[in-house]
Amino acid sequence: MSILPVVDAIGVFAFALSGLLEARRRDMDLVGLFVVALVTAFGGGTLRDLLLDRSPLFWIEHDIYAIAIMGLSLAFALIPATGRVPAGVLLVADAVGLGLFSVAGAGYALEAGTSLFIAALMGVMTGTFGGVIRDVLCNELPSLFRQTPLYATCAFAGCYLYFGLARTPLSGELAVWIAIVVIAAFRLAAVRWHWVLPVSRH
Amino acid sequence: MSILPVVDAIGVFAFALSGLLEARRRDMDLVGLFVVALVTAFGGGTLRDLLLDRSPLFWIEHDIYAIAIMGLSLAFALIPATGRVPAGVLLVADAVGLGLFSVAGAGYALEAGTSLFIAALMGVMTGTFGGVIRDVLCNELPSLFRQTPLYATCAFAGCYLYFGLARTPLSGELAVWIAIVVIAAFRLAAVRWHWVLPVSRH
Amino acid sequence: MSILPVVDAIGVFAFALSGLLEARRRDMDLVGLFVVALVTAFGGGTLRDLLLDRSPLFWIEHDIYAIAIMGLSLAFALIPATGRVPAGVLLVADAVGLGLFSVAGAGYALEAGTSLFIAALMGVMTGTFGGVIRDVLCNELPSLFRQTPLYATCAFAGCYLYFGLARTPLSGELAVWIAIVVIAAFRLAAVRWHWVLPVSRH
Repeated sequence: MSILPVVDAIGVFAFALSGLLEARRRDMDLVGLFVVALVTAFGGGTLRDLLLDRSPLFWIEHDIYAIAIMGLSLAFALIPATGRVPAGVLLVADAVGLGLFSVAGAGYALEAGTSLFIAALMGVMTGTFGGVIRDVLCNELPSLFRQTPLYATCAFAGCYLYFGLARTPLSGELAVWIAIVVIAAFRLAAVRWHWVLPVSRH
Repeated sequence: MSILPVVDAIGVFAFALSGLLEARRRDMDLVGLFVVALVTAFGGGTLRDLLLDRSPLFWIEHDIYAIAIMGLSLAFALIPATGRVPAGVLLVADAVGLGLFSVAGAGYALEAGTSLFIAALMGVMTGTFGGVIRDVLCNELPSLFRQTPLYATCAFAGCYLYFGLARTPLSGELAVWIAIVVIAAFRLAAVRWHWVLPVSRH
Repeated sequence: MSILPVVDAIGVFAFALSGLLEARRRDMDLVGLFVVALVTAFGGGTLRDLLLDRSPLFWIEHDIYAIAIMGLSLAFALIPATGRVPAGVLLVADAVGLGLFSVAGAGYALEAGTSLFIAALMGVMTGTFGGVIRDVLCNELPSLFRQTPLYATCAFAGCYLYFGLARTPLSGELAVWIAIVVIAAFRLAAVRWHWVLPVSRH
C-alpha cells in the first residue's frame, strides 16, 4: 500500500489548483486564495484522519505541501489572469483529484481496520469534503447537495471497484490506478451527458 | 452506565429520520438525503468524541448504523412521498432525539472525567450540533441562533436533572430515562406554548 | 514557555467579549450569546489542538473558562444595552485577541514539534478561526475572505517576528509580549489606514 502517499500528493495539487481557480473566480486576495486552496486540498483528508484518529496529519508533518501551495497562491495573486481559464481545466483537475483522494482515502481507512462500507464512505468523504468545507466557508450551498451530475456516486462506485480489483491477481498498484481512472472518467462522463440521481420531492 | 449505547442507538434513528424529513423538504437526491441523515445523526456525537478524545467513533466501529441509514435513504429516494409528513412527526422525532443524545452525551462526558458543567455542555452539544452542522451544510442559519422555542435550554436543564437524579437512590437506568422523557416533554411544551428566552437587543 | 497559558487565558476573554458584542448586534438570546462567545473564544485553539492531536482541551480540563463565559453571557442577556458599544471597543478587543492567540498558537505548535512555517499557520489559525467558525455558524461570509484591512497577514508576520526574537538574547517572555503588541498594533494600523492585499481578479 506504499503507493497511497504518492496518490495523495498528486491529489493535493489537483485540488489545490481547483481551489485556486475557484478562489480567483470570487476575486479573493492572497489570504483568500491560500486558505481556499489549503482547505480544498487538505480538508477531506484531514477530516478523515481526525475521524480515524490517525496522526500526525501528513501536511503538518511534511510542510513542503503547504509551502508549495503558498507559492502557487502567490503566483495566482501576482500574475494577472490573461483571459479566463477554460471551465474544462477546472473540471478535469477536480475529477482527477476526486479519483486520487477517494481511492487513497478508502485505502487508509482499510489500513485503519474499518469495514468495506465505512472505507468507501471515508473514501468518498476524502474526495468530496475538501470541496464541501470550501463551499461552506465561502457561504455557498455545497454542490454535493444540489441537483448536479453524479459526483459522490462516482467515488463510491470506484471505491467498491477498487475493493473488488484488490481481490483479483492484479497488483495492488494497478488496482489503485484503474479505480482512479474509472472514477475520473465516470465523473467526466456524468458531466458530459448530465447523469443525475432522481430527486426525492416533498 | 451500560445503557448509554442503547440510548445512543435509538437517538441515531430518531435524528436520522428527522434529517431525512428535512432533506426531503429540500428536494434532495440520494446523496443529499444520505449525507444530511448521517450528519444529523452522527454530527453531535462525533464532535463530542473528537473534543473528548474518545475513539474509535461508534459509527466507524459498528458500520450497521451507517448501512441502515443508507437503506432508509434509499427508501426515501425511491418511494414517492404520498402527501406531506405531518410537521408533528418531525417535531416529536427531533424532541426525542434531543433527549436521548443529550443524556447519553452528558453520561459519556462524565465517564471521560469532565466536571458537571462541561458534561452538561457536552450533552447539549451532542443533542444539538447534528442539527447545527446540518443547517450549516445546507447554508441556513442554525435554528439554535434564531428566536425559536426553547431547545438547547431544555437539554441543559435535563442534563442537570440527570446529575441530580443520579445522586438519589434511583437506579442509574431510571435516572437516564426520566431525564430523557423530561427533556422531550419540556421541548414539546416549549413549542406548544411558545416559550422563548429574552433577546439581547443592541 | 510557561507563559503561554496566561496569554491564552487573556485571549479567551478578549475574544469572548468580541463574540458577545457580535452576538448582541444580531439580537440573539442567551443561547446564541453563549454559543457565539464560546465558539469565538475556543474555536481557533480547539481546531489547533485537534489538528496537532493535543489533549485534553484546556477549556474541557478547566471549566472555569466556560463558566465565566456563561456568566458574561447572562450579564449581556439581562442587562439592557444602554447605547451602542463604540465600534472601537470591538476592534481593539479583537486585535488584542488576535495577537495573544496567534503567538500562543505558534508557541504550542513549536512545542508539538512542527516546522516554523506550520507553526506560523497554526498561530494564524488559532487567532482567526474562532471568528471564521462564528461567521460560518451565523451564515455569513467570513471576513477573512472579504477585501478587508490586513488581518491574517498581521498575525502571520507577527509569528515570524516571534520566531526571530526567540533566537535573540531577549527573554522568551519578552519575545512573546513584543510579538503580541506588534500584531495588535499592525492590525489597528491596517484598519486606520485601510491597508489591503491586492485582489486576484478573474
